[in-house]
Amino acid sequence: MRTYSSVPFSQVKVDGVFWRERLDTVLSRTIPSQYAQMVKHNMLRSLKLLKPTPPTTIKPHANGFTTEIFWDSDIGKWVEAASYALAHRRDAVIEAQIEEIVDDLEKAQAADGYLNLWYLAREPQNRWTNLRDNHELYNCGHLLEGAVAYFHTTGRARMMAVMERYVDHIAATFGRGPGQRRGYPGHQELELALVKAYHATGKTKFLDLARYFIDERGSQPHYFDIERDARGEAPGTYGQGTYEYGQAHLPVREQTKVVGHAVRAMYMYTAMADLAAEDDDAGLKRACEVLWRDVTQTRMYVTGGFGPSASNEGFTTDYALPNDTAYAETCASVAMVFWAARMLNLDLDGQYADMLELALYNNALAGLSQDGTQYFYDNKLDSDGSHRRWDWHPCPCCTMNVARLVASVGGYVFGLADSEVAVHLYGGAEARLPVSGGFVTITETSNYPWDGAIRVAVEPEGASAFTLSLRVPGWCDGARLAVNGQPVPLTAERGYARITRVWAKGDVVDLMLPMDVRRSYAHPMVKADVGRVAVRRGPLIYCFEQLDQTAPLAQTRLPRDASLQARFRDDLLGGIVVVEAQGAAVQPQDWAHALYREVPPVEQAAELTGVPYYIWCNRGPNPMQVWLRE
Amino acid sequence: MRTYSSVPFSQVKVDGVFWRERLDTVLSRTIPSQYAQMVKHNMLRSLKLLKPTPPTTIKPHANGFTTEIFWDSDIGKWVEAASYALAHRRDAVIEAQIEEIVDDLEKAQAADGYLNLWYLAREPQNRWTNLRDNHELYNCGHLLEGAVAYFHTTGRARMMAVMERYVDHIAATFGRGPGQRRGYPGHQELELALVKAYHATGKTKFLDLARYFIDERGSQPHYFDIERDARGEAPGTYGQGTYEYGQAHLPVREQTKVVGHAVRAMYMYTAMADLAAEDDDAGLKRACEVLWRDVTQTRMYVTGGFGPSASNEGFTTDYALPNDTAYAETCASVAMVFWAARMLNLDLDGQYADMLELALYNNALAGLSQDGTQYFYDNKLDSDGSHRRWDWHPCPCCTMNVARLVASVGGYVFGLADSEVAVHLYGGAEARLPVSGGFVTITETSNYPWDGAIRVAVEPEGASAFTLSLRVPGWCDGARLAVNGQPVPLTAERGYARITRVWAKGDVVDLMLPMDVRRSYAHPMVKADVGRVAVRRGPLIYCFEQLDQTAPLAQTRLPRDASLQARFRDDLLGGIVVVEAQGAAVQPQDWAHALYREVPPVEQAAELTGVPYYIWCNRGPNPMQVWLRE
Repeated sequence: MRTYSSVPFSQVKVDGVFWRERLDTVLSRTIPSQYAQMVKHNMLRSLKLLKPTPPTTIKPHANGFTTEIFWDSDIGKWVEAASYALAHRRDAVIEAQIEEIVDDLEKAQAADGYLNLWYLAREPQNRWTNLRDNHELYNCGHLLEGAVAYFHTTGRARMMAVMERYVDHIAATFGRGPGQRRGYPGHQELELALVKAYHATGKTKFLDLARYFIDERGSQPHYFDIERDARGEAPGTYGQGTYEYGQAHLPVREQTKVVGHAVRAMYMYTAMADLAAEDDDAGLKRACEVLWRDVTQTRMYVTGGFGPSASNEGFTTDYALPNDTAYAETCASVAMVFWAARMLNLDLDGQYADMLELALYNNALAGLSQDGTQYFYDNKLDSDGSHRRWDWHPCPCCTMNVARLVASVGGYVFGLADSEVAVHLYGGAEARLPVSGGFVTITETSNYPWDGAIRVAVEPEGASAFTLSLRVPGWCDGARLAVNGQPVPLTAERGYARITRVWAKGDVVDLMLPMDVRRSYAHPMVKADVGRVAVRRGPLIYCFEQLDQTAPLAQTRLPRDASLQARFRDDLLGGIVVVEAQGAAVQPQDWAHALYREVPPVEQAAELTGVPYYIWCNRGPNPMQVWLRE
Repeated sequence: MRTYSSVPFSQVKVDGVFWRERLDTVLSRTIPSQYAQMVKHNMLRSLKLLKPTPPTTIKPHANGFTTEIFWDSDIGKWVEAASYALAHRRDAVIEAQIEEIVDDLEKAQAADGYLNLWYLAREPQNRWTNLRDNHELYNCGHLLEGAVAYFHTTGRARMMAVMERYVDHIAATFGRGPGQRRGYPGHQELELALVKAYHATGKTKFLDLARYFIDERGSQPHYFDIERDARGEAPGTYGQGTYEYGQAHLPVREQTKVVGHAVRAMYMYTAMADLAAEDDDAGLKRACEVLWRDVTQTRMYVTGGFGPSASNEGFTTDYALPNDTAYAETCASVAMVFWAARMLNLDLDGQYADMLELALYNNALAGLSQDGTQYFYDNKLDSDGSHRRWDWHPCPCCTMNVARLVASVGGYVFGLADSEVAVHLYGGAEARLPVSGGFVTITETSNYPWDGAIRVAVEPEGASAFTLSLRVPGWCDGARLAVNGQPVPLTAERGYARITRVWAKGDVVDLMLPMDVRRSYAHPMVKADVGRVAVRRGPLIYCFEQLDQTAPLAQTRLPRDASLQARFRDDLLGGIVVVEAQGAAVQPQDWAHALYREVPPVEQAAELTGVPYYIWCNRGPNPMQVWLRE
């Protein structure tokens, strides 16, 4: 069923200004600083199975719950991000650091292949007794993704061998065969990692285990009930209340609402789309489409953020999208990029690319500071000034997630079919791609996302007939196309301008995407946004930080008739396009000492300046709003 | 310094429709149901010092903290409320119930006079070791207020005698003399109770102790530090962080900002105003005035609610008045009525009466359901429908507070000077008052707060020269006055129309207070209210409950040019004046499936109907807003 395949980031040279700068920061600052944080917080020592275990510098939660139990996953995610970095630029120090991690994993691995560091060190007798809460399978997934990435970049197979032994142990333990337990991950992630391992090795056992986990999930009798009874816990004692928290309330094909923990949901949907492609599974594809419609039509922030609630790190009810308490975890948007990329391979529909781009350029990228060493875990759309970036987080999942996303961003640029090249993202990228039996080099040049003038140079090795499909984003009106300088009519077919011809060396396509500043309104059922307006330009959602405004933000509105101007400011935040408008602010000056009065407040003109949402809070915490009163 | 004195409620016959109905409900339903709740929750058994102590039905807080430690105060407050009820209508059942409580207190009292039931039963060795947190002196205050009220109504002095022995013990324990501890209440309340005891008995020892507590508070070395060290606790371990929580951060005369726990603050300010009057203490009066300005100009809800934050049950920062998370404890508004009444005696200024009325008719009264058996502890100004009344509360302080306020509301109607009668509140009241050496019966007749036509009949025993000062509320424009049917010019002097003449039997004054429906706007620094409008009529703040609206409240606004109509609805909630207006609501119908779009939502007309804030949530929980988008 899959009609398109991704082009791995390692085959794509990313050289546009925007992403090159992010990429360089991640390579030179984020990856090393994350390693230093893992050392500082004793995370890496956890691999050495020291007795007694070294003290953690991370405070347990009030209920005694400690994030140490997730550390394997964080280490795996760092290996993955670092391996992506190595694909851009080999680095002996980082490679030695990874090798030491692999040494430790090898040493720690039990004879039967089991490899969860928490359980091996602290509770060896309690392996596999609480899949629902304790992340053993989740941890395995991230270590496996790390192993695949490291293998991919370096060809070194040792970590992959360790993880394959662990997966073999898991596959022997869980399944529908005699003596097996019918378990599956409490926190989904391993499923998509197994598909990656299958792609890397061609070994179908990985795919089989992923398929089993997805198919078994939510079936009755419920494995989490069985496990709970085995632990001697009473029904009704589950802190999360319902298995919706982990999307295990129903078999996945019967799920029609996005519910529960947002990251778990997005990882699971990613694996579902993967399996729909691998297995040509129309039912699974349909389930993905239903869930996609649900999340995009009722449960998504305008910034491409997901999961409004801190209490379940996830979804609540339709249209409930508060701005000041928005959780919108960085990881959830990173995971949405994964899911959208899979949907795009299943079906070349611009709605998937639009979402991928929205989540990537806004909520996900906001998770990383401009200097590459600070993070947002949750991404509010309205801050009173108290929301601030972290140097590190007790649960550092988002830190590595945004690092691995940026380090592999090139992998989301192209889609490939037998006789078609699709360009999903713009911003400066080059790749040599196999099409129609030969190779063609596609070079996309632009100053995207600041400018919508896109040039795509096509260099086949010889004349080659194929379709070049250029995405025309949903946010864009009036796109224009020219081939070799000659305007051609542009008819976007589900978000792509498809140009089929015999291409020759030197062919050039110009796509002009007008980047007007646009207003965005939320559905009237979104209580928090009624009477408010958001501003976007191209793929970027803008926000308004107090320090750029002339009047207090909370007192300022953007009247409906105010014109919005874009302006490039090379003096600001390394060079960005800001949005400027004449706003109006209520004035406190004539209030004397009254707290309430019958005369409405007087408004005066106030200059409004917006910056891209992803770059906010890089000049210190200060009040910020995405949705302005209109 | 006191220029006016209050007229005790027991000398005032309240017979207007509005308060008569509230009063009857409190007498017939609230007082008995509260007794039943105290029985049900084993609160009264706590007086019997049973060993082992009976189990509480109230869950302790997560940190093991139990509200049982406050129960003496709740019992005292019930005795007080019940005694006020008895003044309206003697009741043998209630009197027997109080007598049994007095029996128990007598039996429980230690030989040295000490009388805290928690400590006597559970930790006799730990008396007076933690004034900061554990409410011994606070509990004494409420029992003492109960004793004063019971004595006042029935002439029975036994409870007063018990409490006097306890106060003597306290006065011997705390003070500046040799061997005494320089402590004072962690939760202020005893101070104002002692002033009441002084008024009831004429014994200056009560006043002396009150004065000591007020003067000693916040002085250095800090008693709460000394106590903490004696308990062996490390500095910095105080859960509330700062002594601002209990207004003990500075000597009271140096305090200029209202901070910390709102109820403690208001009780303390009440006692400060009391002492300013008793001692002719200009410094203390000035401190009260500074704090008054601070709270009314920067830290008060439009509903007369105080203390926006649940975390400290109190004040935060200037203009920080969120609506959906408003704490605005019922008790704080009840206590504001106390404070305002004292300020009004110090200085006949309408601003104090306006505040007294605002707090009374809105935030305080909202605390009691129409049927008299359910309560709000916190009073939000914006509910998503989840805020609901309680049958009882783990900390039932507000329940008795609103009951005692309603049962004694007549006590806030009149102010008295040698040759002046001031009428502060309207709504139907009669009293025979000593003025200018004789007696005069003042009968105020009106359908207030629904109607602003006030008639005051003056019946001196003989011709009598004095000033009748009728309050002209700050919310009123265009008030008109007539004496014996003849219009006279009305010049309000600081909120009072003062009519000095020789009054004769049959004299009648008519005061017409136009009750237009008015819009209220908040200071632009109140972030939550920018772009919003509140509606008031007379003393009543209105709110909008979803079940009275034609469109979802969150989608509806009240345009600035929409006219507001008042209409009496005898079919609604026992007969109330509603406010009606043509609003406008954004429509979801034309949104198809989009969650965000570039076209602004379309508005359609929507009927808005507002009800008085105090009566909301008497038809089940439902969404409610005080501040509508304009």
